[in-house]
Amino acid sequence: MLRINIIGRGNVATHLMKAFSGKAECQSVNPHTLENLDPNADITLISVSDNAIAEVAAKLKGLHGIVAHTSGTIPLSLVAEIMPSTECGVFYPMQTFSKETELDYCKIPFFIEGKSEATEKALMHAASLISENVRIADSAKRKALHIGAVLSCNFANHLWTLADNYLKCNGIDFKDMLPLIDETTRKIHNLSPQEAQTGPAVRRDLNVIENHLHALEKYPVIQKIYKDLTDSIQSI
Amino acid sequence: MLRINIIGRGNVATHLMKAFSGKAECQSVNPHTLENLDPNADITLISVSDNAIAEVAAKLKGLHGIVAHTSGTIPLSLVAEIMPSTECGVFYPMQTFSKETELDYCKIPFFIEGKSEATEKALMHAASLISENVRIADSAKRKALHIGAVLSCNFANHLWTLADNYLKCNGIDFKDMLPLIDETTRKIHNLSPQEAQTGPAVRRDLNVIENHLHALEKYPVIQKIYKDLTDSIQSI
Repeated sequence: MLRINIIGRGNVATHLMKAFSGKAECQSVNPHTLENLDPNADITLISVSDNAIAEVAAKLKGLHGIVAHTSGTIPLSLVAEIMPSTECGVFYPMQTFSKETELDYCKIPFFIEGKSEATEKALMHAASLISENVRIADSAKRKALHIGAVLSCNFANHLWTLADNYLKCNGIDFKDMLPLIDETTRKIHNLSPQEAQTGPAVRRDLNVIENHLHALEKYPVIQKIYKDLTDSIQSI
Repeated sequence: MLRINIIGRGNVATHLMKAFSGKAECQSVNPHTLENLDPNADITLISVSDNAIAEVAAKLKGLHGIVAHTSGTIPLSLVAEIMPSTECGVFYPMQTFSKETELDYCKIPFFIEGKSEATEKALMHAASLISENVRIADSAKRKALHIGAVLSCNFANHLWTLADNYLKCNGIDFKDMLPLIDETTRKIHNLSPQEAQTGPAVRRDLNVIENHLHALEKYPVIQKIYKDLTDSIQSI
């Protein structure tokens, strides 16, 4: 069985431990003490915040096996420069991880990069133990994917937070939005998002837009975002 | 069987015709000629763009039965003033309608308002023929719901358009985002959107944010929205 160290205690590390359970021999390693580190592991995954990756990598110099980080943003070169004699790589699961939720790991797209072809293959193999959707992506492509993910996921979720706050102030339960949000998501499996666009902005229904902006006067942050996104929709 | 006129040729009118098929005796009516109008219908639904509702209502004065519009934004009073002797109301299905997609009508929330209790009851009954989720909402509440829907649905969809455009320029298929978007949507069925928030903005990962803003320099519209939404996430 593959032996894997997972360094980190965050959402990604926690979910990777769960995903590999029964499929690899995994050690959960505290990034501050590295005390449970299996020195003979095939792969050591650095799954800490982006700012802390370099510091952890520096402590792993001379380790046997492959060392890979799980970040969407940090280039492979950062780790490769710190540990020039180590086989290193990237093991990026593109998903939104919250500790409280269960995930269907086999659908998560993994994007892999390795310093050598052999490392890339080994990381692909490890990812394929838990996911059906494993691909190679260099650091530039991974960064673009991450930006796409921030727009598509983090920012869409924040719009739902703004809607939740606004609706609460108006005595409405955000749960009333769920059928609409589900359908909005379902639609883009068959249409491009541009084809799927509906609403007053794309209809150029200026009366409705004016009316909404007026109603949002007490919510300046939401009003600004309403304005910017309406302008953006109309500029396409 | 209930007799219903549906005035309009847009997405909402088309879907209402489909939804009522077999459950009510429906006439599809051209808003410019009103030639197919059933003068003895129990309910006439005005399902045209917000700007055209008043004009259509003016032509319906003296009609028997209930006249209701399907807009999220137009107050009941607008129609009530135009046709003071008619029983009028609002019949608002809160959903994103695209002509090309099939819908599960029974899940769509309908928000109903009537000039009198009897009208409200009759419209509730009509909506309950096609949906399990029918509620009363006055014009103020309906407007708040509509604003929530624009934020939650129209604007989230537009972020996906921006992501699609950006990813295309970077040789990536937007379809790669779908597992992430599905999970983002799934999460808010169990967590509040604020609890579900992930990403560099909420982690205050300034290096990543800087890095992304730099990468977006060639995409000024996206860069501005990235900045605004990051600020908004961090201000909560």
